[in-house]
Amino acid sequence: MNTQKNEIIAGIDLGGTKILTVIAGTYCNLLAQADMLTHSEQGYEGVISRIIESIDAALGHVNEQRASLKLLAICTPGPEIDTKKGIVHFSNNLQWRDVYLKEILEEKLKIPVVVENDANAAALGECLFGAGRSLSNMVYVTVSTGIGCGIIMDRKIYHGVSDSAGELGHTIIYPDGPRCSCGNNGCLEAVASGAAIAREAKRLAHDGQADVILAAANNELEDIDAGIVAAAAMSGDNTAMEIFDNAGKALGIGLANLVNLINPSVVVLGGGVMKSKDLIWTSMKREFERRVIKRSGQHVKIVSAELGSMSGAMGMIAIANTELKGDICG
Amino acid sequence: MNTQKNEIIAGIDLGGTKILTVIAGTYCNLLAQADMLTHSEQGYEGVISRIIESIDAALGHVNEQRASLKLLAICTPGPEIDTKKGIVHFSNNLQWRDVYLKEILEEKLKIPVVVENDANAAALGECLFGAGRSLSNMVYVTVSTGIGCGIIMDRKIYHGVSDSAGELGHTIIYPDGPRCSCGNNGCLEAVASGAAIAREAKRLAHDGQADVILAAANNELEDIDAGIVAAAAMSGDNTAMEIFDNAGKALGIGLANLVNLINPSVVVLGGGVMKSKDLIWTSMKREFERRVIKRSGQHVKIVSAELGSMSGAMGMIAIANTELKGDICG
Repeated sequence: MNTQKNEIIAGIDLGGTKILTVIAGTYCNLLAQADMLTHSEQGYEGVISRIIESIDAALGHVNEQRASLKLLAICTPGPEIDTKKGIVHFSNNLQWRDVYLKEILEEKLKIPVVVENDANAAALGECLFGAGRSLSNMVYVTVSTGIGCGIIMDRKIYHGVSDSAGELGHTIIYPDGPRCSCGNNGCLEAVASGAAIAREAKRLAHDGQADVILAAANNELEDIDAGIVAAAAMSGDNTAMEIFDNAGKALGIGLANLVNLINPSVVVLGGGVMKSKDLIWTSMKREFERRVIKRSGQHVKIVSAELGSMSGAMGMIAIANTELKGDICG
Repeated sequence: MNTQKNEIIAGIDLGGTKILTVIAGTYCNLLAQADMLTHSEQGYEGVISRIIESIDAALGHVNEQRASLKLLAICTPGPEIDTKKGIVHFSNNLQWRDVYLKEILEEKLKIPVVVENDANAAALGECLFGAGRSLSNMVYVTVSTGIGCGIIMDRKIYHGVSDSAGELGHTIIYPDGPRCSCGNNGCLEAVASGAAIAREAKRLAHDGQADVILAAANNELEDIDAGIVAAAAMSGDNTAMEIFDNAGKALGIGLANLVNLINPSVVVLGGGVMKSKDLIWTSMKREFERRVIKRSGQHVKIVSAELGSMSGAMGMIAIANTELKGDICG
């Protein structure tokens, strides 16, 4: 299973819940993977220990040692990451502030470490290996608990001047809409994310207007999540369907704004909420088509992501190879 | 006054009202200019005759002949232009549909002709010679009768997949807002452009709620324009001030969405409406700062355009030189 001269690299997708580690050869050939729970409540030092454990676990699957590892590329949830210096300034999912991730991991592993934003990494993964194969320019949007977005231009991540490009989740859809975790009102994330869907369902259940959803959560208001709302909608509950309909409408407006500004050839949609299929896609597409300018609408395809939970780690494998060899995958 | 070996180029900004022609040497050194009314009501053939007249007039100022002209670069108002083929598919300002501008002008002038969108041309002009000097990446926004926008990346115009990138004027600010000329509702152009300001003032005057503005238009409802509303606001009329305040607020939201997505280092604002200074800048900046994500807001400057009506023609001179010599100005 060893690649030539034991040159191997690691790509990691560090999420709020899970650490996914992939080991690959220098032609992006996958060799092994391992996942492990993040346990962010244990603080950043605990998380970093588990990152190293997960690398060792993945290496173990192919009987490799850390000494064979040439480079580690890791992506983390934002919103505030300095990718050049490898510092996670702020991540609400990880509960991190100013963690010098690159420096710490380089010290511990004695190999170069590259840090990237998770949505950017997933965008690159989908562009190179997934729904955007053969494209140079595309946008990836993930709708799960939050909403992330990565912009790919010329098969490279577009970072913007301060690593903050692609914050589609914090573009404003309804200026007087619900409060967002960022402090603003009416952001896309505050009206179309999994968290927003759950919050709206809880609000209605609290007011006695979502009995079916509440029953599906065994009458535990706090247990209502987007998955429960989706299940209720699929069973025909009008309230749940309307919640998804409204989220889809907001997403359609957000995507129209994105496409009207950036005019990409493809938008790839991933994340748990998009798996609820027609529940959200129908109203999203209707609103998008109503709002997009004609010429951009004619030239864009909106498609599903193909790599699922592997997109971020695969993007990091591509970044690791680019860093190591100057080109993407061999 | 002749440049070496009489190598000269022409840059034209074709507007709905005026044709501005600039003659320059191949180091972007300006030699002469001429302007002429467009008279788009005479149809595209009349306009094209006047374009050629304006070239001859500008050449006349420096005693040059058409034979010395190596290339013509012309920008036109959109929204639908195929810059590669030089076809104006649709321009509401010019009342044009499917005009093969490049082909017609090349046939008449026997030199290569390059066609560009006017906001893109102005963006490049400001980037190279105006408020964006020394920057590689910036966004230019012009707020006049309509709202135009051009995105510059690596000192080049970012076109998108179908020449439609940068349609900030058709991003949605208020999903249930006023109807836009594009058929959509609540576009930035429908709530913050000069036309939107005039329309709102007319609506209020019609309802007897804008007497000062109406009086400033000599009680002729149809004569109310953004300039009259600005004058009334500057004289202290609360209604007029509120109209500008609301337009500024919408513009602040639109710019926050733009900056949250693209994370540029500078946004350059031009166009007649932005000349109304504090009337629109104060509420725009307040709303922008409220809405922009922290890290992008810390890294962006919002500044005034510097080239005024010359930005488009200057951008086209740069494009003409790039086309002719492979680099921008020398």
